[in-house]
Amino acid sequence: MNVTIWNEGIHEELYPKIKEHYPNCIHGTLAEIIGELPQVDNVHIATLEQEGCGLPDEILDKTDVLLWWGHMAHDRVPDELVAKIHHRVLQGMGLMVLHSAHFSKIFIKLMGTSCCLSWKEDTYERLFCVKPSHPIAAGIPSHFELGKEETYGEFFDVPDPDETIFLGWFDSGELFRSGCTWHRGYGKVFYFQPGHETNPTYNHEYIRKIIQNACIWLAPSNTIEYITSPYIEKTLEEIRKTK
Amino acid sequence: MNVTIWNEGIHEELYPKIKEHYPNCIHGTLAEIIGELPQVDNVHIATLEQEGCGLPDEILDKTDVLLWWGHMAHDRVPDELVAKIHHRVLQGMGLMVLHSAHFSKIFIKLMGTSCCLSWKEDTYERLFCVKPSHPIAAGIPSHFELGKEETYGEFFDVPDPDETIFLGWFDSGELFRSGCTWHRGYGKVFYFQPGHETNPTYNHEYIRKIIQNACIWLAPSNTIEYITSPYIEKTLEEIRKTK
Amino acid sequence: MNVTIWNEGIHEELYPKIKEHYPNCIHGTLAEIIGELPQVDNVHIATLEQEGCGLPDEILDKTDVLLWWGHMAHDRVPDELVAKIHHRVLQGMGLMVLHSAHFSKIFIKLMGTSCCLSWKEDTYERLFCVKPSHPIAAGIPSHFELGKEETYGEFFDVPDPDETIFLGWFDSGELFRSGCTWHRGYGKVFYFQPGHETNPTYNHEYIRKIIQNACIWLAPSNTIEYITSPYIEKTLEEIRKTK
Amino acid sequence: MNVTIWNEGIHEELYPKIKEHYPNCIHGTLAEIIGELPQVDNVHIATLEQEGCGLPDEILDKTDVLLWWGHMAHDRVPDELVAKIHHRVLQGMGLMVLHSAHFSKIFIKLMGTSCCLSWKEDTYERLFCVKPSHPIAAGIPSHFELGKEETYGEFFDVPDPDETIFLGWFDSGELFRSGCTWHRGYGKVFYFQPGHETNPTYNHEYIRKIIQNACIWLAPSNTIEYITSPYIEKTLEEIRKTK
Repeated sequence: MNVTIWNEGIHEELYPKIKEHYPNCIHGTLAEIIGELPQVDNVHIATLEQEGCGLPDEILDKTDVLLWWGHMAHDRVPDELVAKIHHRVLQGMGLMVLHSAHFSKIFIKLMGTSCCLSWKEDTYERLFCVKPSHPIAAGIPSHFELGKEETYGEFFDVPDPDETIFLGWFDSGELFRSGCTWHRGYGKVFYFQPGHETNPTYNHEYIRKIIQNACIWLAPSNTIEYITSPYIEKTLEEIRKTK
Repeated sequence: MNVTIWNEGIHEELYPKIKEHYPNCIHGTLAEIIGELPQVDNVHIATLEQEGCGLPDEILDKTDVLLWWGHMAHDRVPDELVAKIHHRVLQGMGLMVLHSAHFSKIFIKLMGTSCCLSWKEDTYERLFCVKPSHPIAAGIPSHFELGKEETYGEFFDVPDPDETIFLGWFDSGELFRSGCTWHRGYGKVFYFQPGHETNPTYNHEYIRKIIQNACIWLAPSNTIEYITSPYIEKTLEEIRKTK
Repeated sequence: MNVTIWNEGIHEELYPKIKEHYPNCIHGTLAEIIGELPQVDNVHIATLEQEGCGLPDEILDKTDVLLWWGHMAHDRVPDELVAKIHHRVLQGMGLMVLHSAHFSKIFIKLMGTSCCLSWKEDTYERLFCVKPSHPIAAGIPSHFELGKEETYGEFFDVPDPDETIFLGWFDSGELFRSGCTWHRGYGKVFYFQPGHETNPTYNHEYIRKIIQNACIWLAPSNTIEYITSPYIEKTLEEIRKTK
Repeated sequence: MNVTIWNEGIHEELYPKIKEHYPNCIHGTLAEIIGELPQVDNVHIATLEQEGCGLPDEILDKTDVLLWWGHMAHDRVPDELVAKIHHRVLQGMGLMVLHSAHFSKIFIKLMGTSCCLSWKEDTYERLFCVKPSHPIAAGIPSHFELGKEETYGEFFDVPDPDETIFLGWFDSGELFRSGCTWHRGYGKVFYFQPGHETNPTYNHEYIRKIIQNACIWLAPSNTIEYITSPYIEKTLEEIRKTK
C-alpha cells in the first residue's frame, strides 16, 4: 500500500511558530502518523513548491491513498493535475481531505457543491462519535476533548455524507459534521475537519488514530483503468443463451 | 411555481419519425405533462438552438424547477451557462435530469463522477418501485410494464443516491438504478432513466405521473442568494451572552 | 388528512406548572399547531387514560399522521396496541415521535435498537439546519436559538437516519442529532428532540413551523392493506409472453 | 476473531439431495468458506436441534461475527435467545443474514419492518455490483452469472439500506436488492439473498468471496457492554471548567 501525503507547505515557511508543534512541517507529522501502519509499504511526501506539485504521473499512478492538506494556495494547483487526481479517485484511490482542504479544487470537484462553511480560530472543540460501528471509529471513545481548534460551522455545503462518523461541538456555539465519507467511482473519500495549522491537533492521540483508521479504510477495494460507457454489442442474455 | 423545460431539440429535426409520438417534440410533451399540475404557474420552453440556449438570466433566475433532456450536443452548452445553472441549483432550484442527460455537463458537475453507464436500444423494460413511501412514487404501483426502452446498465458511475426510488429490469439481462435523488446545496436533483427519443415513453401514464410527482418534490424548500464562507466576527455564544 | 395526537398526559396532572405554558396540556398545544394547517381535515386527541389509550381501531385505521408524546408511562401502552400502530406505519401512516418518546415502545420497535441517549434538564439549546433542501426545513433559518431545553446527548442509539435535518448544540457541552427521518414499510417516521414538558418549547415559532412541515411531509404517499410475501405463481415474464 | 455459523439444519435431514452439493450440510460449507480466512481464529457451528439452539451464553458472548441460515423453523428459535442475539449485535457483533433468513426473528427485530418479499424457485439469477468501492465487493466483477437460484422479488420490506452493494436480476422478470448493509447499535448487519438450499450457490467462487469479504467487514470496530441512557450528573463543560 502506497500512501502519498500532499501538503501545501506555505504556512510553515511564513509562520515558523508552526514548527514548534510540527518540527518537520504538517506533512512530516502526517508521514509519521501513517508510517506507523504496518499495512503501509511506502509513504511519499509531496508539496506545492516541488516540480509538478510533487505529483508526477509515476507517483500519482501508484498512490493507493492520498492525504491532502492545503489552505492559502488552492488556486496554484493546476486544473490538469486536479483532473488527474479526480480520475485517480474514480479509478479507486482513496482521498483524505484534511481541515482547510475543504476548499481544495479536488474536493469541490468531487462534491459538486461549494463546500462553504463558517469559521473562527482558537475556539474549543470536543468531538463526538455518532457511528461507533465504523472502522474509522475503531478505538475512539464516544466523545473526547480536542482542545483549541478552529471553529468550522454549519451550513457545510457538501452532499449528504454517505456516513457521518464524527460531529464537532465548539464553545463558540457552533457544531459541525466533522468526519464524513463519500464514495466516488471506485474510490472513497474521507473529510476530517480538525487540523488547524496553529494548533497541535495532529499530535493528539485520538486524531492520529482516526487518521490511521481512515487510511486503512480508504485503501482501494477494487480498481479500474477507465470507467467507460460501452455500447452493448451482445446482451448478457444473448451471451448466456448462445453458450 | 415556474418550471422551465430544456430540450436539446436536435433529434426531432434529424429524425422526423420522433414526431409520430411527440408531435410537438420532446419538450412539447414534457410541457404538456407539467402543464397539468395546478401547482405550476408557468411552463417555459428552452432549446439549444435558441439565443443563449434559451436560458437568459431573466428566465433562469426565476426558474424553480428545470427539466433537462439532451443527448447529441452536450458539448454545445457553454460552460458559463453550466456554471449559472449549477449556482442556481445550489440556490435551491430543483433539477430533473432525463434519460441521456446523464451525460449533460450540469449533471456531471453536480455528481462529481463520470456518470458512465452501458446502453443498447430497443430492449424491454419493467420498472420496480423500491421506496413506495416517497412522494415521487405516489400513485405508482410496486412495478409496471414500461415496454420498449433503451437498456441502461450498471455500473452507473454516480455517487450513492440519497434515495433510490425506482429500479429498472431489462430483458437484455441488465438492471439499473432508474430513479434516484440527490441534494446539492439548497437544491434537489432527480435523475430518471426512461425516455429514449424513439420510444413513446413520455406518453406512458405512470411515467407522466412520476415526472409530475418529481416536479412537485423538486420545488425549492428554501432558497439562498449565495452560500458563503463567512468569518465569524462575533460567536453565537458571544451574541447570546451580550443580549 | 386525519391527524391524531397522542399524549401520555400524566405530567400535566402531576405538575400543574406545565399548564402555565401549555394551558390545554401538551396535546392541546400540539393540536393547535396542527390545526393551523389547511391540509388537515381532522385533528383527534388521544391520551393514555382514555379507554384503549384513546386509540380504538376506528381512530387508528383512519389516521394518516400520528404524533406521539410520552415519557413516564411507556410501559402502560399495551403491546397489542403497539403492534397495531406498527402495522399502521407499515401500511403508510406517518409517525412523528416527539422528545422523550424516543423510549416509546413503538419507536424502539420501528428502529430495532435501544434508542438510548444521555440527558440533563435545563440547559441551553441552539438548533442547526444541515439539510435546508428538505421540506421539513422550509422557512427555517440555518440556525436559531431555542433557549432552555433538556440536553439529549450522543451516542443516540438509532439506525443511521435516512436524513439528518437538524442538529442540536447544548451549552452543557453536548450535541445531538435532533431532527431525523426514517422510512419503514410504506410509512415515514420523523423524530424531533425538542419538547421537554417544563420548557415552553412548543410555543416557539420555528418549532411550531417544523412540526407543521413534518406533518405535511409525513402524509402517506402510498398505502397498502398488508405487505405480503407472495409465491409467484406465474412470473412477470410468463405473464408478458402469454399476452 | 470468533465466527459462529448457525444453521437450522432441517432441510438437510428432510431432503438428502441437498447433500449432493453440501455433503456436510449448509453449515459445513459455510464453515469451510469462513475457515479459509486467516483473520478467523475459531469457527463454531450451531444448529437448531442442539441444546439451546447451539448458542449458550458462553458461545454467543465471544462470537464476533454470526452467520444465520434458517427457513422452515424460524418460530422454533426462542424469543429469549433472539433477545440475547439482538443485545449482542448492539454490543458490536456482526450479523450475516443469509437467504431465507430474511424471515428470521432476529432480522425482523433488527429491521423493524415485515421483511416480506415475493419468491419462486429455480429461476436464473445474475448479480450486479453497484458499489465497487465497498470492501464486501473486493475482487468481485461488475456482474457475474449466478445460475439457477430462487427469485426473490421486490418490494423487499426493509429499511433503506445504509449501503446497497449488489442487485440481483432474475429471468423471471424480477429484480432484488440482494446485498445490503445496516448498522444497529455498535454492530453491523449484512443481508445476502443468494443461497437457496436446492441450488449449489455456496460453491460459487464469487459467492464464497463475498461471504468471506462480508465476514471481515462485519468484525466489530468497537464493542460496548451495555448501551445506556445515563443522567448527566456533571456536564462535559462543567468537567472541563473545573479541571
